[in-house]
Amino acid sequence: MDMEELVAFAKRRGLFWPSAEIYGGAAGTYDYGDVGALLKRNWENAWLAYFVDTNPDYHLIEGAGILPEAPLVFSGHAAKFNDIVVECSKCNTFYRADILLRDSGVAVSEGAGPAEIDKALKEHQVKCPHCKSTAWMPSKPFNMMMDVGLGPERSIKGYLRPETAQSAYLNFFREFNVLRKSLPLGLAIIGRAFRNEISPRQGLYRMRELVQAELQIFFDPEIWKVDFKGISGREVRVRLYGKTADETITLGELVERHGIPEFYAYHMGLIDTFYRDVIGVPSEKLRFLEKGGNEKAFYNKVHMDIEVYVESWGGFSEVAGLHYRGDYDLTQHSKGSKQDHSVLVNGKKVMPNVLELSFGVDRNVWMLVDVFYAKTDGRSVLQIKPFLAPFKAAIFSLQKEPELEKAVDGIYKELRPHLKLFLDQSGSIGRRYARMDEIGTPFCITVDYDTVNKDSPDYGTVTVRSRDDRKQVRLKTSEVLDYIKKATSFDPYGFFSFG
Amino acid sequence: MDMEELVAFAKRRGLFWPSAEIYGGAAGTYDYGDVGALLKRNWENAWLAYFVDTNPDYHLIEGAGILPEAPLVFSGHAAKFNDIVVECSKCNTFYRADILLRDSGVAVSEGAGPAEIDKALKEHQVKCPHCKSTAWMPSKPFNMMMDVGLGPERSIKGYLRPETAQSAYLNFFREFNVLRKSLPLGLAIIGRAFRNEISPRQGLYRMRELVQAELQIFFDPEIWKVDFKGISGREVRVRLYGKTADETITLGELVERHGIPEFYAYHMGLIDTFYRDVIGVPSEKLRFLEKGGNEKAFYNKVHMDIEVYVESWGGFSEVAGLHYRGDYDLTQHSKGSKQDHSVLVNGKKVMPNVLELSFGVDRNVWMLVDVFYAKTDGRSVLQIKPFLAPFKAAIFSLQKEPELEKAVDGIYKELRPHLKLFLDQSGSIGRRYARMDEIGTPFCITVDYDTVNKDSPDYGTVTVRSRDDRKQVRLKTSEVLDYIKKATSFDPYGFFSFG
Repeated sequence: MDMEELVAFAKRRGLFWPSAEIYGGAAGTYDYGDVGALLKRNWENAWLAYFVDTNPDYHLIEGAGILPEAPLVFSGHAAKFNDIVVECSKCNTFYRADILLRDSGVAVSEGAGPAEIDKALKEHQVKCPHCKSTAWMPSKPFNMMMDVGLGPERSIKGYLRPETAQSAYLNFFREFNVLRKSLPLGLAIIGRAFRNEISPRQGLYRMRELVQAELQIFFDPEIWKVDFKGISGREVRVRLYGKTADETITLGELVERHGIPEFYAYHMGLIDTFYRDVIGVPSEKLRFLEKGGNEKAFYNKVHMDIEVYVESWGGFSEVAGLHYRGDYDLTQHSKGSKQDHSVLVNGKKVMPNVLELSFGVDRNVWMLVDVFYAKTDGRSVLQIKPFLAPFKAAIFSLQKEPELEKAVDGIYKELRPHLKLFLDQSGSIGRRYARMDEIGTPFCITVDYDTVNKDSPDYGTVTVRSRDDRKQVRLKTSEVLDYIKKATSFDPYGFFSFG
Repeated sequence: MDMEELVAFAKRRGLFWPSAEIYGGAAGTYDYGDVGALLKRNWENAWLAYFVDTNPDYHLIEGAGILPEAPLVFSGHAAKFNDIVVECSKCNTFYRADILLRDSGVAVSEGAGPAEIDKALKEHQVKCPHCKSTAWMPSKPFNMMMDVGLGPERSIKGYLRPETAQSAYLNFFREFNVLRKSLPLGLAIIGRAFRNEISPRQGLYRMRELVQAELQIFFDPEIWKVDFKGISGREVRVRLYGKTADETITLGELVERHGIPEFYAYHMGLIDTFYRDVIGVPSEKLRFLEKGGNEKAFYNKVHMDIEVYVESWGGFSEVAGLHYRGDYDLTQHSKGSKQDHSVLVNGKKVMPNVLELSFGVDRNVWMLVDVFYAKTDGRSVLQIKPFLAPFKAAIFSLQKEPELEKAVDGIYKELRPHLKLFLDQSGSIGRRYARMDEIGTPFCITVDYDTVNKDSPDYGTVTVRSRDDRKQVRLKTSEVLDYIKKATSFDPYGFFSFG
């Protein structure tokens, strides 16, 4: 699907659309409809089960979206969370400089400053996409945080957090003391972050309000032991910093030949397994992209984007990041809060380092639709893994007959405490199947005359149709629950060797 | 517990504390720690299972927190979402007028305007709590919404939504068309709302950023049929508008004698059952408080608060509301969006009415701690229902011995895909039990020498201790999962007769 088709599909089937759509839609904010909210929730629950619940030292917490000014001064966001913007001298339209240049076919380094930008605009005679002028005001940094005024005079400055990570760093000290006072300690947050994007675009890719799923692991780099041996032979696709081609390389080689720390490579394996094996992204559509130089935040010691090939976004696109942030965060908040965050572990004082696993939830939801929506044999099927499916099964009656509908109702009531179901008594069977295929429902249960006919050998049975192969099996109603539960549940331990 | 004790307990046990605590804490925003996040999540999941998943016409959706200005102009919030504030002439401290007066022992009607407030301040010679002056500036309305400036010049005005309800109203039109184009249609949201409270206080009671769980039911008042017969005999405690005492009255009598619509009384029964039977709030601690006159929003046709007696807040306190909002919301958004929201149902054109079930999630979490924390036989126990418990079980080894710890590890790995567990290898058994009692863990599983001793008749068994009666049973490890799952799972259908 291209961008436009995907947007139309998402609206038609209840996935997502711009907020306040009836008022023309807001730029950069999206709402999830009934189907989208379930898909998003299932992705989040799988993320949580796989990355957090598998480790007794990792915990989900929740933090407010509004933060006071001080922590964002010390985190560096107040001074440095900037994009470079440039204004057309003629029509006064603003642009994010890097995007303007990229869209005009001009290459500048990621993280380029105003001087480099201004030079590139001039040298390449870049035109304003709006009025075609080539006269630009000097470009300048623009802080992407949104501020709010609190209190009766709105004079207390607050910011909407630009990343959920800060809520985790601000709670490390309390949680370390509440918990077992040992490292590693993981704090996970699924929540909203806010960025005043100049040009929100590409649907759920660049948003002003986004949902992040982030895990911050606090650890002592000298003694953190991960079980690397089991995973070191796994091959991953990586584009290393400064290279122009991807290579396929084992995690062990990344450690030995490229100086990637073992704990970092281990988590590459964890993430690679999540995308390829858990979610089912085809190998050729996944890669790690190493960032270096100006491209990465200065405090990151190792920084890779995780990219999936998303056709509607035009190619490989960032859906997650793995960042070894060193001790920057807790050192800064130690200064800012005047509370020493170094901790005593095994008699040694250490400022915990941070490894950040950061996922854009909205991007991942969009990616699922892009990668798994397929047109096959004249059908449109969202071929997501069954545990991600918004509804695990739909229940229909073959005909609009009170007796059949009563049987549907009985089965529905029996199953509904255990499975998320779609109940639909209207339309033709063919149309109902098509609808369920399109939103990825793995099974359709149909009640027919045999179900209720005491003289039929099929009395008390229903047909259960599978989404992908369209095969139908006839099952006793008492067998349906186990059959569907088994095929749609999620066990994170089947994929990776967790400690 | 009083306020101070509850706050201290919440910090000590990982429940909640002010955001950015290490920087001195922000006023009116709170973070949830590892235990609090699980408790909150379990409450939310129970709410969702009981109020939303029980009805195939009700759906969870999700909406952005930032909204454009226009919908909030038409919803009335831009003009009318005001508190009356008053400023001390001498020290320039601001107060929310109704709270200042109440704290000074002066009664004014809820919703009193500036004239009434100024008169009361003067007549009763109310003193500034800060400087003791009695000289006040004229009181004035203060809009409680927080605004944000979007775009490169921050000139595009947005608001942080003051209630999640608006996201539901803004999505009705799309969802009605995506779904079966029939009424009733329910849209539920669990999400954050933002209010610039002048005096945030009382912990999770009056917050600047709060979490709401709201269900908006869109219906045609002439034809909505609820199954009232089964519930009409249920007695509820109500303080009717204008009365000074509570009365216990059946839902049927409320309909017949007090003109409460049947669909409204039915939902009172649903909510009453949720609090008393599902959550387990003692009957004497729950009541409905009817609002009328200036106390209720002008568009509400029937408005009741649901109050629980919360000792740390000093008495009956609002935890939820049931609001029959008429057709105000969709009529206004029809005007604002120029999109007629009336729909054709059974050949009749109707502007859907709204019944709103609105719950303050943070308040409900606080309430759980206040109501269910008990000191008995020298123990402190959070006696919440097992399905609400952050951890369903803890696993300990009796002694710090490699063989026992290996057995603990084996059981832990067997159970963890199915139950949220607390794993603790440190401290005395007594201290570990005490900690689990305090955060409401229903079961503690202990591995001892008999567990691993092949010659013992108890080989392969563990002790399972119950939180409330402290009784221990000896179970085979293979029986533990079923035993605990049965006791800690939640089936909403056991409480109320759903259609």
